[in-house]
Amino acid sequence: MDDPVLLTGAGGRVGQAILRHTGADFEWRLLDREPLPDRKLPEGVDDTDVCTADITDGDAVREAMTGCRAVIHLAGDPRPEAPWDSVLRNNIDGTQTMFAAAVETGVEKFAFASSNHAVGAYETDTRKPELYRPDDEFRLDGAELPRPSNLYGVSKAAGESIGRYYHDHHGVSVVNVRIGNLTEGHPPIDYERGQAMWLSYPDCAHLFKRCLLAEYDYEIVYGISDNDRRYYSIDRAKDVLGYAPQDNSAEWDGDERTA
Amino acid sequence: MDDPVLLTGAGGRVGQAILRHTGADFEWRLLDREPLPDRKLPEGVDDTDVCTADITDGDAVREAMTGCRAVIHLAGDPRPEAPWDSVLRNNIDGTQTMFAAAVETGVEKFAFASSNHAVGAYETDTRKPELYRPDDEFRLDGAELPRPSNLYGVSKAAGESIGRYYHDHHGVSVVNVRIGNLTEGHPPIDYERGQAMWLSYPDCAHLFKRCLLAEYDYEIVYGISDNDRRYYSIDRAKDVLGYAPQDNSAEWDGDERTA
Repeated sequence: MDDPVLLTGAGGRVGQAILRHTGADFEWRLLDREPLPDRKLPEGVDDTDVCTADITDGDAVREAMTGCRAVIHLAGDPRPEAPWDSVLRNNIDGTQTMFAAAVETGVEKFAFASSNHAVGAYETDTRKPELYRPDDEFRLDGAELPRPSNLYGVSKAAGESIGRYYHDHHGVSVVNVRIGNLTEGHPPIDYERGQAMWLSYPDCAHLFKRCLLAEYDYEIVYGISDNDRRYYSIDRAKDVLGYAPQDNSAEWDGDERTA
Repeated sequence: MDDPVLLTGAGGRVGQAILRHTGADFEWRLLDREPLPDRKLPEGVDDTDVCTADITDGDAVREAMTGCRAVIHLAGDPRPEAPWDSVLRNNIDGTQTMFAAAVETGVEKFAFASSNHAVGAYETDTRKPELYRPDDEFRLDGAELPRPSNLYGVSKAAGESIGRYYHDHHGVSVVNVRIGNLTEGHPPIDYERGQAMWLSYPDCAHLFKRCLLAEYDYEIVYGISDNDRRYYSIDRAKDVLGYAPQDNSAEWDGDERTA
């Protein structure tokens, strides 16, 4: 794969997980709203591959995307409690700007960082806390309608619909990754929900690597490790993308690995 | 029902269909971006019940909504080919403004004018034109994920997700009506698709009347008449809302009624 991959939100947690664990596997263009310090760049990436811009700036986005075959779009306001005006601009309008630029510049694959918050309201009072436990059989598989936890989740569901439109009408391959709870090193401690939707850094990087290498049309997959506790199915990610997670929150006792 | 119903987009086609055929059944507050001429007002509604305002103006919307028990929200850019900036502002941001005001003012029921364009891309080349014909068994029932025809459809799907959030977190009863092809008098002529999704004016008014009278949590229903050609199920509208359509595009030959 010679053509570069554009990674937006490269300085954020998901972007850094990807770059740290699969940074050497691709040629990158990195985009972030804030200047990226050298420590956030993978080896071989220098200033000429880095663009400091806002994703709602169509001209800047098009310039950064030109020549890229694929996009991993992570940029946006990442706060579950973000106010409407911010998610409207950064997450909804920003994502539409990204897709429009992708069509104009001939991008073939577009991986979108959706979120567990697009479906958080399936965790109803009657299902909690049982659905966070290994013997509970409730599963979400990506075919269900959104049930956002918050306005941030509304914005992620909107991003998924935007991608659906650009896939159906412009032929872009689109995968939406509903990212769980990404933490470095070990799963969240004393937090059943976080353990159920844990995504380790290596599994995160591997999953997005598969998004760049696999063939697909339009997909919604859950981005979690192979957790015993899960209530998100990872079957679709395995079947379509070839996702093969290495981690499982059950193998940890607090911050100690037990398996 | 003594408390008034707020109807936004009252001067548009859907609003006028409602007011003409069920205008006498409710107390109304009417909101439109343009001043409403007297001919567009039902009997008994005078200027004191009319608000000329943009739905993105939160203060104006709250004032118009205060004291209302229910809302029928039709306002927005109705053009399938509307540009992104307009649907972002008028349809997505405007609908969020409406829901936020509904929570603040204690509205209990909220009927949202969604659209067939939220799912138009299910009409794939391999399904067309057979799905427009009476013997074809393909059906959409409202449980399917959005597949927008255009950015207008993206905005309507976003409105549905916004409603889901406000239902789950704030307890508002929400019904999304994916309106088909509303035409006055007779169904579209020589247009199979339009006949499949025809919604007559009386059926439109009756359906929204049922949205004001029935009890429900969160629903997505299709707004079409009882057409033989349909590929939208109306079972959910019948079961949950008590929708009983009187019209069927099959009973027309051109603009002549045959049954």
